[in-house]
Amino acid sequence: MAHTKSMLRDNALQGQTILITGGGTGLGKSMGKYFLELGANLVIASRKLDVLEQTATELMQQTGGKVLPVACDVRNYADTEQVITKAKEVFGRVDALVNNAAGNFISPTERLSAKAFDTIVDIVLKGTYNFTLALGKEWIASKQPGTILNIVTTYAWTGSGFVVPSACAKAGVLALTRSLAVEWAKYGIRSNAIAPGPFPTEGAWKRLFPADALPGDLAKKLDPAERVPLKRVGEHQELANLAAYLVSEFSAFVNGEVITIDGGEWLYGAGEFSMLDAIPGQLWDEIEKATRGKKSSQ
Amino acid sequence: MAHTKSMLRDNALQGQTILITGGGTGLGKSMGKYFLELGANLVIASRKLDVLEQTATELMQQTGGKVLPVACDVRNYADTEQVITKAKEVFGRVDALVNNAAGNFISPTERLSAKAFDTIVDIVLKGTYNFTLALGKEWIASKQPGTILNIVTTYAWTGSGFVVPSACAKAGVLALTRSLAVEWAKYGIRSNAIAPGPFPTEGAWKRLFPADALPGDLAKKLDPAERVPLKRVGEHQELANLAAYLVSEFSAFVNGEVITIDGGEWLYGAGEFSMLDAIPGQLWDEIEKATRGKKSSQ
Amino acid sequence: MAHTKSMLRDNALQGQTILITGGGTGLGKSMGKYFLELGANLVIASRKLDVLEQTATELMQQTGGKVLPVACDVRNYADTEQVITKAKEVFGRVDALVNNAAGNFISPTERLSAKAFDTIVDIVLKGTYNFTLALGKEWIASKQPGTILNIVTTYAWTGSGFVVPSACAKAGVLALTRSLAVEWAKYGIRSNAIAPGPFPTEGAWKRLFPADALPGDLAKKLDPAERVPLKRVGEHQELANLAAYLVSEFSAFVNGEVITIDGGEWLYGAGEFSMLDAIPGQLWDEIEKATRGKKSSQ
Amino acid sequence: MAHTKSMLRDNALQGQTILITGGGTGLGKSMGKYFLELGANLVIASRKLDVLEQTATELMQQTGGKVLPVACDVRNYADTEQVITKAKEVFGRVDALVNNAAGNFISPTERLSAKAFDTIVDIVLKGTYNFTLALGKEWIASKQPGTILNIVTTYAWTGSGFVVPSACAKAGVLALTRSLAVEWAKYGIRSNAIAPGPFPTEGAWKRLFPADALPGDLAKKLDPAERVPLKRVGEHQELANLAAYLVSEFSAFVNGEVITIDGGEWLYGAGEFSMLDAIPGQLWDEIEKATRGKKSSQ
Repeated sequence: MAHTKSMLRDNALQGQTILITGGGTGLGKSMGKYFLELGANLVIASRKLDVLEQTATELMQQTGGKVLPVACDVRNYADTEQVITKAKEVFGRVDALVNNAAGNFISPTERLSAKAFDTIVDIVLKGTYNFTLALGKEWIASKQPGTILNIVTTYAWTGSGFVVPSACAKAGVLALTRSLAVEWAKYGIRSNAIAPGPFPTEGAWKRLFPADALPGDLAKKLDPAERVPLKRVGEHQELANLAAYLVSEFSAFVNGEVITIDGGEWLYGAGEFSMLDAIPGQLWDEIEKATRGKKSSQ
Repeated sequence: MAHTKSMLRDNALQGQTILITGGGTGLGKSMGKYFLELGANLVIASRKLDVLEQTATELMQQTGGKVLPVACDVRNYADTEQVITKAKEVFGRVDALVNNAAGNFISPTERLSAKAFDTIVDIVLKGTYNFTLALGKEWIASKQPGTILNIVTTYAWTGSGFVVPSACAKAGVLALTRSLAVEWAKYGIRSNAIAPGPFPTEGAWKRLFPADALPGDLAKKLDPAERVPLKRVGEHQELANLAAYLVSEFSAFVNGEVITIDGGEWLYGAGEFSMLDAIPGQLWDEIEKATRGKKSSQ
Repeated sequence: MAHTKSMLRDNALQGQTILITGGGTGLGKSMGKYFLELGANLVIASRKLDVLEQTATELMQQTGGKVLPVACDVRNYADTEQVITKAKEVFGRVDALVNNAAGNFISPTERLSAKAFDTIVDIVLKGTYNFTLALGKEWIASKQPGTILNIVTTYAWTGSGFVVPSACAKAGVLALTRSLAVEWAKYGIRSNAIAPGPFPTEGAWKRLFPADALPGDLAKKLDPAERVPLKRVGEHQELANLAAYLVSEFSAFVNGEVITIDGGEWLYGAGEFSMLDAIPGQLWDEIEKATRGKKSSQ
Repeated sequence: MAHTKSMLRDNALQGQTILITGGGTGLGKSMGKYFLELGANLVIASRKLDVLEQTATELMQQTGGKVLPVACDVRNYADTEQVITKAKEVFGRVDALVNNAAGNFISPTERLSAKAFDTIVDIVLKGTYNFTLALGKEWIASKQPGTILNIVTTYAWTGSGFVVPSACAKAGVLALTRSLAVEWAKYGIRSNAIAPGPFPTEGAWKRLFPADALPGDLAKKLDPAERVPLKRVGEHQELANLAAYLVSEFSAFVNGEVITIDGGEWLYGAGEFSMLDAIPGQLWDEIEKATRGKKSSQ
């Protein structure tokens, strides 16, 4: 189907250098691969150098593009500066930053320690502003334009039980996105975000949340695809297409925006009467008969 | 319990005249009763004069206050002007307007006609701006301050399936609230809204949606109280307390705000992982063992 | 610059038939032209047949595509059915609907009549649900998937003074978008919206709001470009690129979303301290000296 | 005027113990005073014991209530546990928590260090979840209900330039509020927030932002009162009234809500055409003449 194909025209990112945090695996890797296919150079940064190097080799073979892997703890500001320095040595400059590195615990909140909260907030929120600040200062000092793309979640604005440290941190990232979109626009720096719904990655969901540990009916009830009105999860290329749009010049007038790509998942739960889709079609005939000609008027 | 008692100090609305549309039954009647208890005069307006007159008599007996019932089709601008004229004749002026009249169909959208949409939009949206415009022009011309309180729904901003005409109309009312809060503040006119979750009224829900027509498991699944994190529906006095705050001078710096009073209902559905509360406590022990020391890092 | 070029790969909309209301002029015409360039057939519908026919001729000459102009008053449900019937006769089916027809008055609200409100609400909100309902019923009955794209405004959720009927109506359209995204997903029908900031069209702004009537300093103060952090207005191709993405299969997992493309305009005004960009750079040196080492701690 | 008087009926908080962080000065002190007047016991916690003790003495003299001052660095989880232990020793239990401690820098973001970001995030976000976690665990373990009230800002959801660390941190607090409102409701714990607009406090604004350092026209342009549609700033009692409602049982069905009390400030900036209030009344006559009978129709 078309939605799993490349969307942008060829060479749409030709000559651009894009830095992705957490770019060694999962969605970060999928976005990076597509950016390479569109002609970009890639810098990937995370803690595990061996994973990064393996991904770099793999992606370069697949796409013919250039990938620079740099080990880095996003929680350490000096580390983020050093990634940028290396990227400039190799590619001359960085044009876009994708803050994608994340961590999460799925747990009742009262079972978490304050330290567990700190860990997630440090990776997600501090990691994001560390990289954003380091690169933003550099862009402003060198009068170079730039583009920031932050990966958040739909619960960044609604909150969510059972992932509360992540909710706090991602909400902070969303506020960072919108604040700098306004403040740094004068320097030619745009900021946007994507809020993905369920996009399965090898291992991530399972590592966090072993569905095998759940009784069958519960596993079915909690199946993410069931909560999405379109009754499916997302494909990585769908996210990559949207991300490529947002780091490209084609989105030059989109600024401060968070684009949700979740098949309608959050709205489905939020809408007070949307759960009435549990009523089968023929039952509506009977309900209509019973209520004909009546409408509520408080 | 305290939350079903009167909140504001005695005579908090002494001498105020408050006009409530759809004030003859349901939540409108409950709000009106409390306003009377706090010392206000009341004007109630809807289509059925006999219902209004019965309510007026009942409320005056219960509270010792003054109630003026006026028949009116909110869809007809001239009708709204005439209600205001009568209210001024009796009480001298109107201090606050509560746009509470509403209509709703619970139905799959594709089963509705365009005419059904029109009916709801005309009552809810046009009815609201008719009264607001008629009274606003009057307030501005006579340099009198005023307060507007609109009753909307939580799906005014999220939308909802199966109540789509109402969603469209209430969204329009919310935009009216926020727009005039800004534009008419210079005339001393404030505008706010309340978005109530499930507050049962005699007949309304049943008239719309006969739970008796549903199989037992479906009726349970669709039970509103189950969707509210606090596991109960609202009490009318809780809404009346909030409404009295918003029409009173105590809320003088609250302007353009919509206050949700739903026990957390809409957030519960919206939060991507909140449905994990279906997992019983002891299962979390096993899940923790299985995922110990792991956190996702995309 | 790249952002004014075609974004999607060639033939991205090949064989699709897209119906645009208000497609004879302005942004509707610009979107339509781009859809044609990407291989789509076009149906344009509005009240003035002569304008539509002239546009159809022009666009066919420019792009080599097929355009069907059909006269129609969007406020009349029967008219919308007839447009769809004609479109099916010519192109076999309609794949996507762009609800773009709009009206607006820029005026202090107290100067408007209820009738003026009705006019805008009828065109914008009723016109949108008329077309959506007529085409949705058709899609559902024939088990055909479809895509809806509604053009709203940033003040659909914040409201705005001086354009209040439009704010009410566009808010209703936004709620319609989100509601049906959830409810009709099971039929393969997606719904999304775009909220454009300032995109000048020939005549529209001037017709509404003659800047010539304003003193120079006021005209400058009210200049839309000044309110956009990027300090420019939007280009039609930027909107067309985004619209093409949202009617194409590439956005298959985007559902119920409203994408703002305004350069950050609404966020700039909304952020409590963003107006501090009026402080010139060197003054910050002095402010820093005066506040060094101090931070607020309430 | 009424809006600066006590709103709730006498003894509305009788016997409740309320813990306010940052309760020694400013808005925290004003809320605390009102809680005491309504019959509550008060615990105030911040870093400076001498300030706390002076406030405690002052408030006890003024209200006849009981105040326990406890020194505490909110960034240190052990400190927060110890405050709760002391509060329980003195008052038996804590019924409500008001997370009010805050810090802020007003500065162009590129002038800030990562360390400056950390400082604000640690005080505001970590401080809030530290106290919330410590008290929540205690409430859940002892099966005691509780109420949380978090003080955020309007830029928690819109973001804002020039206060970016605060925006990130307060956004996190808002997500915490909404997440726990859902997750902890089953334990009888409610969570809500207030987003105050400009409420002057002795020193705070001046300390942060010396208006004296600005040229007169700039100081006027940046005057917060000018941005509020009601053309005034808030009075402390107005905030105290709202806060008392939210910690009391009267708001028992309000959960997960953030109530804005800003006179309409954020909406005024957000609405695309609201700045047209710069046009004086008589000019609208001319504009109307020039545009009569025309409405935009894209």
